[in-house]
Order: sequence, then C-alpha cells, then structure tokens
Amino acid sequence: MYRTNTCGELRLTNLDKKTTLAGWVQKARKFGGMIFVDLRDRYGITQLVFNQETNAALCEQAAKLGREWLIQVHGIVAERSNKNPNLPTGDIEIIVSELQILNPAETPPFTIEDESDGGDDLRMKYRYLDLRRNPVRANLELRHAMAFATRSYLNEQKFMEIETPVLVSSTPEGARDFVVPSRLHEGQFYALPQSPQLFKQLLMVSGFDRYFQIVKCFRDEDLRADRQPEFTQIDCEMSFVEQEDILNIFEGLTKYLFKTIKGIDIPDLPRMSYADAMRLYGSDKPDTRFGMQFVEIKDLTEGKGFGVFDSAEYVAAISAEGCAGYTRKQLDELTEFVKRQQIGAKGLIYVRYEADGSIKSSVDKFYTPEELKTWLDRANAQPGDLLLILCGETEKTQKQLCELRLEIGSRLGLRDKNQFNCLWVVDFPLLEFDEELNRYFAKHHPFTSPKIEDSPLLDTNPGAVRANAYDMVINGVEVGGGSIRIFNSELQQKMFTTLGFTKEQAQAQFGFLMNAFKYGAPPHGGIAFGLDRLVSIFAGLDSIRDCIAFPKNNAGRDVMIDAPSAIAPEQLKELHLKLE
Amino acid sequence: MYRTNTCGELRLTNLDKKTTLAGWVQKARKFGGMIFVDLRDRYGITQLVFNQETNAALCEQAAKLGREWLIQVHGIVAERSNKNPNLPTGDIEIIVSELQILNPAETPPFTIEDESDGGDDLRMKYRYLDLRRNPVRANLELRHAMAFATRSYLNEQKFMEIETPVLVSSTPEGARDFVVPSRLHEGQFYALPQSPQLFKQLLMVSGFDRYFQIVKCFRDEDLRADRQPEFTQIDCEMSFVEQEDILNIFEGLTKYLFKTIKGIDIPDLPRMSYADAMRLYGSDKPDTRFGMQFVEIKDLTEGKGFGVFDSAEYVAAISAEGCAGYTRKQLDELTEFVKRQQIGAKGLIYVRYEADGSIKSSVDKFYTPEELKTWLDRANAQPGDLLLILCGETEKTQKQLCELRLEIGSRLGLRDKNQFNCLWVVDFPLLEFDEELNRYFAKHHPFTSPKIEDSPLLDTNPGAVRANAYDMVINGVEVGGGSIRIFNSELQQKMFTTLGFTKEQAQAQFGFLMNAFKYGAPPHGGIAFGLDRLVSIFAGLDSIRDCIAFPKNNAGRDVMIDAPSAIAPEQLKELHLKLE
Repeated sequence: MYRTNTCGELRLTNLDKKTTLAGWVQKARKFGGMIFVDLRDRYGITQLVFNQETNAALCEQAAKLGREWLIQVHGIVAERSNKNPNLPTGDIEIIVSELQILNPAETPPFTIEDESDGGDDLRMKYRYLDLRRNPVRANLELRHAMAFATRSYLNEQKFMEIETPVLVSSTPEGARDFVVPSRLHEGQFYALPQSPQLFKQLLMVSGFDRYFQIVKCFRDEDLRADRQPEFTQIDCEMSFVEQEDILNIFEGLTKYLFKTIKGIDIPDLPRMSYADAMRLYGSDKPDTRFGMQFVEIKDLTEGKGFGVFDSAEYVAAISAEGCAGYTRKQLDELTEFVKRQQIGAKGLIYVRYEADGSIKSSVDKFYTPEELKTWLDRANAQPGDLLLILCGETEKTQKQLCELRLEIGSRLGLRDKNQFNCLWVVDFPLLEFDEELNRYFAKHHPFTSPKIEDSPLLDTNPGAVRANAYDMVINGVEVGGGSIRIFNSELQQKMFTTLGFTKEQAQAQFGFLMNAFKYGAPPHGGIAFGLDRLVSIFAGLDSIRDCIAFPKNNAGRDVMIDAPSAIAPEQLKELHLKLE
Repeated sequence: MYRTNTCGELRLTNLDKKTTLAGWVQKARKFGGMIFVDLRDRYGITQLVFNQETNAALCEQAAKLGREWLIQVHGIVAERSNKNPNLPTGDIEIIVSELQILNPAETPPFTIEDESDGGDDLRMKYRYLDLRRNPVRANLELRHAMAFATRSYLNEQKFMEIETPVLVSSTPEGARDFVVPSRLHEGQFYALPQSPQLFKQLLMVSGFDRYFQIVKCFRDEDLRADRQPEFTQIDCEMSFVEQEDILNIFEGLTKYLFKTIKGIDIPDLPRMSYADAMRLYGSDKPDTRFGMQFVEIKDLTEGKGFGVFDSAEYVAAISAEGCAGYTRKQLDELTEFVKRQQIGAKGLIYVRYEADGSIKSSVDKFYTPEELKTWLDRANAQPGDLLLILCGETEKTQKQLCELRLEIGSRLGLRDKNQFNCLWVVDFPLLEFDEELNRYFAKHHPFTSPKIEDSPLLDTNPGAVRANAYDMVINGVEVGGGSIRIFNSELQQKMFTTLGFTKEQAQAQFGFLMNAFKYGAPPHGGIAFGLDRLVSIFAGLDSIRDCIAFPKNNAGRDVMIDAPSAIAPEQLKELHLKLE
C-alpha cells in the first residue's frame, strides 16, 4: 500500500489521523528550524512539515529533496497555524515521522507550475512533464468528463455505440487520405477514415436506428493552428427522423453538457438561416455573443460623387458602440488590420457619431452630415458610437467585415470566454460552384438531401437548391454539423450526376452504398461534433492542441516519440514498396 | 414524424390506441380474406392486419409487399385472437388503415432470419443486411452494453479515459506494425499502435494515476480464425499500486459486468500460479469449468519393461469420468485426434476401469491390474472411468494432454457456454528463452517488473525469475493480461541488457521512456482486456468476428467495401513511394 490518502483529501475533520501520502515535491522551503514541502498528486497539494528540533535526521533527509522527486511519507494530520485559504487542504499539514524517496528526479527542463517557463517546443518534447501542470491536467479531466457525459446522455436516449473500422478504403472525394500499405495484398492500400460516414449510413440500412461513436478520424492536410492529422468526433446517426428530430436530440445533448459539466442552463438554441448568417455576420459561424450586425447602406450612398462606393457591388457598415473617441492611431490600426493580406480590404471608411451629436467622417467631402446621419440611423448608432464601413464585391466584403467585427468585438471585450452563445445555422446551400474546375461540389457531402421543395431546381438552377443541412455554432466556432441524407438510390444517382460523376465513376466509388439503398434503406440523418473543439470551447482554450494528451505539432510530428520516422528496409520490402 | 411507436413496444394495455409504425416487412402471409404482415425494427416485431372485407384497395396494396420492404402504417391496436406467446407484442396486432411504402427492396441475397441460408462470404459482402438478423444485432447490443458498463465502473473508480495517438512510431520489438507513409516527411512513416503501452506508462509519469481507454489496436499478423488486424482493448493503468490492488479493481470490474449484463453473481476469482496451471492443465489459460486435472504417474510406471514410458521424460494421465464404456472406435478417434499434426502425440494409452471393478488397458502386457490400479487411484478414478495417458518431453506432452482434456470435456458436455469460470493466473516467468535466436525474450513485454525476491536471479538464472504479471482467464480463454511495470530507469536498462539490447539500441528504441523515468516516475502497473474476446465469451460465440460490426475476413480484407485496394499513382507520388 503506497498511500492511505491522496494529496487533495485531508481536512480539519481528519485531525490527528495517521496518514500515508505519496506524490511529487512541488516545492520545498526552509523557515526557521522547519522544512515545508508541498506534496502534489492528481488530486491536489498537501503541506508536509519536517521539524529540526523533534527529528534532526529526518529533517536532514528532507533538506535534500528536489523538485519533482517522488516521495512517500507517514505522518499525522495537524492544524496549520498559517492557513492557506486558496488550497482545499489549506487548513491542515502533515507532521512527518517517516520519509521514503520512491524515485528521485533530475531537474525538469521547465518549471511544473500553472504558468510554465517552458516554450511550446520544449513542453511538447517533454509532454509527460507538461501534463503534470494543473491547467493541462484540468483540460484532460474536462475532456474525460465531457466524453463520459455524452455517452451517458446518448445511451439514455437509446443510442448504441458501434465501432466502425479504422482500416478502410480510400475515397477520392474530399480531403486527402492517410493510407496503409497492405503486406498480404501486394500493391494495395487501406485508408484511414476521414469520418465513419459510409459505415454509419450502412448501419442505418441495417436498422440500428440510433448510432453514435466517439471516434478518431484522420485527414492528411497541410496543418493550421487548429487542425490535427488525427482528431476525435462525436459521430451520430438516426433513422426515421426529419431535421427537426435531430436538432431536438442534439440541442438536448448540448444543454445536458452545459448543465452537467459547467452548471449552466443555456436557453433554447436560436436558428438562423445560412442566408441571414451571411447577411448579418458575413459568416456561416457567427459569434453571437455580441450584436454589431451588418447594415447594408449601398442605397444611401449612391450618386453623391464618391466613386469607390458608387462602383462597389456592396457597401455595409457595423456600429462599434462607444468608439467614437478612437484616436487617429487606433483608426489607422484598424485600417491596417483590414488591409492585411489575409483579409484583403482596400481601405476602411468611418463615421464618428460624437457624444455631442456632431458627425465626422473620412468621407465628409462627399456626404453632408444629414446624409451621414441616415447611415447612422440605419445602423441604430447612438452618440458616442463609431460606424465602420467596407465596400466591394459582396462575398469578399462580407468576409472582410466579419473579420473587422470580430476584431472590434475582441477589443471591446465582448468575446468573453465564460459566456456561451449557441445557435443552429440551417438551410445551407446544397452545392457550391467551383469556378476553376467549372463544376459543382457538395457543400456538405454528396449524401446530403436537398430540401424536398427545392429539388425541382436541381435540373434548372442547382446553385439555388437548399440542403437539409445544419451546423451548431458556439461563440463563432462550428462545433458540429450534419444533414438529412438521401435514402433513395435514384436521387443519390441524380446527385452524383449533378456533381459531374459518370454513372461508372459513381458506381466504382460509392456503388456499395447505392447498392445498399436498394434493400429498403430508411430515411435517416445525422450529425458529427468535433470533440476537440467542443472541449476547447468549454475550457476557454484558443487551440484544440491544449485539450489533446499527445498532440502533433504544426508539421504533423510527434516530437516526443519522434514520429514519423524511418523504417527498416526489410519492412519496406515486405510491403512491396520502394522509396522514390 | 415517421412513427409514434416502435415495433417492440405495444401491448394489450395500448388497446384501441391510434398508432403509426415504420419498419421492414419480415414476412407477409394470406389467410382467408386477410393479409398478415410481420413488421420488424430494432426493437421487435409487430403483426399488422389488412382486411379484404373492410378495405379491399388497401389489401391489394399490401399484397404487393415483399420481404425487407420499408413501410409506414397508421392503424389501431387490437387484441389478437390467435396470440403468440413467444413474442413480447404477441397479444396484439395493428388493424391498418393506411399504408405507405417508404422504400421498396430488391430480394435480399439471403434470408434475414435467425438462421440464415447465406454462407459466410455472402453475408460478409452484404454485411449491412446480415446485421439486420436478430442474433447479430444482439451481439452488437451486448457489445455496446458491456463497453458502457465498463466505462461506468471505471469512471466511478476515478479512472480517466484519455485518448492516446493512433499515428505513432514503429517499434521493432513485438509483432509487425502497420505503417502509414508521411507525405510531409519524405521517406518517413507513422505506425499504428499495437497497444498504447508506452503512452499509458507516460501518463503515469505525468501523474494521471488511474487511466483507461477503450481503444483500437493494430497488428499486421498472418490471421487466424480468432485474430483481426484491428481489435479493441480495454486498456488500463494505475499508479501507486501493487499487484494486489490491480487484481482487486479488475476482479471488481469483471464481477460488475457479469452482474449488470448477465445478472450473474460470480464468486471471488481463484488464483493459480503459472507453474500450477501448466502442471495441472498443461496451459496458462486453463478451462476450469471442469476438473480432469493432470496426474503425473511416471514414478508408478517405471521399470516394468515398457520402454515408451521408461524413456519418456514425463508420463501423465487424465481420468475421463464415465467413459470406461468407450468403444474401440471411440478410442481410435481419440488416438487419431492426439496424433493430428497440430497436436503431434505419438500415441495414446488407456486404462479402462470397468463398472464391475475390473481393469483393462492397452498396456496390460506390461502392467498387472494391481499396478494399473495405483495409477487409477492417483487419478482418483472410480469404476466406470477411463484413464487416458500421454508421455514424452514434458512441455510438449503437457500441451498435447491439454488438447485431449479439452476434447474430452467437449465430448462430455462439460464446456457449457452458459457457465462462466473465471480465474487469475499469476507468477508468470519474466523471460522466455528462444533456442533458435539464442536469446531471452520478455514473456509479457520488456517493461514488466520482476518479483523483487527473484530479481537477484536476473544475473545468475534469468529463466527462473518470476514476473509481477497476471492473466485473467475465463472458460479457457485469456481475456486480459497485465503486469506491474519497472519504474526505475536502471532496472529498465538492466532488463534491456538481459534481453540482449546494447545500450545504444535500448536508447534508440525506448530512450524517451527511460528518459521519462528519470523525472520521478511512480510505481505503476496495468492490464488490458480484449473487448472482442470478452464480448464473444459473454455472447457464447466461437469467433470474435461475430461481435464486430464490420470485421475483416481471414485474408485481412473487407469484402463489402473492397479494402485494401489500389490507390491513384498521384497519391503514391505524393507519398514519395513506388510499388516494387
């Protein structure tokens, strides 16, 4: 028996109890004739006391302890004279009578504290030490709790967790697959799944009715800060449902998670059409923690000789509350911000609605105060507010204005990590046209069902067809998305035709699914949540990496175990492969 | 809304209720002026009635329904005149007033019945139809329930489920890895994990204390009936524990599963040393549903002129209860059985202890009845029993006698699938000597700790060192195994030396683990259960394949989706690879 109690457990009620603790030395300090040691484990920190007067030999031993040494102590719970109200165990300390060093430690390459002095690279190389830090451990505890709560909710709702294979076959549609060469089948490869999409639809054909799986998925993409080559989905599918049924069940899951994990009652989720989301926020994942919706003012600006607006397809404004006092420098910063290459605006127009009611603007050469006032009124601006205006091609400008709105929101402190605004974005377009390749692509995936009322348009105006597709958005992040699927093999064939597949191509790539649909496939639909993103939002993290135990770096590399790495020539030979 | 009720739900208490059901046509039959349809979904079967007299048009529509058509009906719950006591819904039927065909079905390639007429290959190709069959669905329901109960138990015990990576690096020790070529890192490969062994040990170094994960693992082995290239483990690790702690926690899990899933209270698990298991059953996974333990009789057989026994290292018998009446033909069958190439015995000796107390034997030329009686007595044989004897080199003969014992057990009906005998096998040897390679191999894996009391033998007689390793065995199947780990980098280094690694090799392959041990690694140990095997034992299945939704066949192929398969030449090029 290595311990009778954990380091987070003992209280004043345990006074005079004989106890055995084991844990890591967080720090040790000498004070008078005493040595105080903070002993740490997963559950907390408990203070140990070694007294020079009562046990000099023991004290001498304790004096040698270094940070992160693993020790075991026997002792008695005593009341602290100098209590620490920040620590759950802060009312007590352990008077140590016996000390055993279980494992000494070399000096760690960075400090194991809430705020570490280790850089990203060092912390990743020694991830096993980084994981000792409280905030990192708390993230993984949160992740476990969220996954467990998700399973409890879905099990209660009669969902079955069914494992789908990891060694599957490569599908050319979509992102790039990771592949696994087969030793037994020369020249052939498995692929790692980007999602269990086909399998969960087949499970519906099998009659499983309510399926879920918390499952690893894989994409061989060039990585950005918020992408990992392997990531985890809460993957779900239901039969005999319409869109409404799915939204209700998974709105329920979201409420359940906020309630059980964070103790927050979130209200019913508002629903916003894709068209409204683009019109009001310039994004299909609007951050609705704050207003500052777009206001189109093209009609109010025309014919006054300002060519930039007159020639623009789209002119729109946001009203930044209380920002009329922004200095020249602040305005220049914002202009630089929107002109950055990643955003790409040509410039920024402002109208100051001063506190005294007067109006100043970067375009007051062209517009009278009365004219400017009509812009302010449409944006519902109040004295003290600042109107910021972008113009240009509609979609591009909406995206630019979206970035500006988020930037202003951040500057104004309107994007509080402890506030959670959830909504459904619905009525996505079914298809996207790719100008370069001159063909339509499925916006969601090729199995998404068009809205029945729009399906006649598939022949005449495919771009206008809306899908039975939906995303859940929290604080401007898409945490989940899904759709009602096509369950009829003719409609599925028609969809492939619209996407430019020949009958043969469709048959070769998705033949077994279309074949399955011939045996009484039920109406079905589903959704997948990104667990990594969901956890990082609950944790208030900027990157999904911080809620993954052993993440890859931006080059897709695990620097701790040094993966990927070279393999033995015999191994290559067995796989019938040569390096180029 | 596609349905108000499921097909397994309605009872006499719902009489006269208006209901909407949706499901698959299990079968339809005409009887008098009526058509009866069995409608099936995941939850059960409900009988539908169409009446020619009251609604001829509807009846005509119903007459066209084929097997596996997906339909929706509206109707009224009525009492059946001809009740079916075998069906939970057997007291009622639905008088249908409206019928809608949601999706017609082609004739399935095999019957969707409990006993299907489809062969293995056909059922795997159309696995999505095979999964509609009750017994297959029941296996997956059991699997879900067992995984969920496992998580509930471990969560309750403060275990955290932590996901470890799937894209790792290749380790030469152990079975063959599946590898994944990296596109971003030319000439380098990830490997798929054979188990999260290293990561879970690192999590212990991180202080996570109680970890588990239900996780896919991968082995590129030549497949046998009971192996799959991807399989699922309940993988667990704990810190600050000794072997006793781990056995207690996971004995608790096993009891919890039997209780919650099957309603069975199993007794405390007996513990058997590896040495006893080999001595009494010739196996480290003895089937203890029946006795028939080995009895060594070499000393009783010597010096009577029977050279076969005299020259044998080992002579042992089992007593088959009530088998004295076996015919010549039956005895010849058993002889053929032990002489099969997979078993490899040279012959089989018997002693019949007739019901009248007389004794007959295939070796009564050499031994008197009195001498034979001493053998029978040692085996505690009673009149009516049959003594079966094998001899030869100890280990080989033990394995042969083990197979014979299991065969007799099966013939006598002693291996009841509804009886569950669990035990721990403990005190495994740490090392195994490989004669061919002339080196020791770790019996469990190279991180397993020797028993403290045996560790001095590491230098003098490594083969005699026992490990802190343990297996859980149920009905002759190893369902789980684990060990206490080495947590000291010097002992780990010594272990590698014993296994014939140079310091450099050990450093190259396991350096990061030994490095991690330098930072105050805690004492730790763990266990991993094979979920597939555990489920198949609970389900009484012969193969793990039947409790996997989408298994691979014996050639590692998924015949439904046709994986593995060729990939595009551009894909190969991006991966810097060429086919040989």
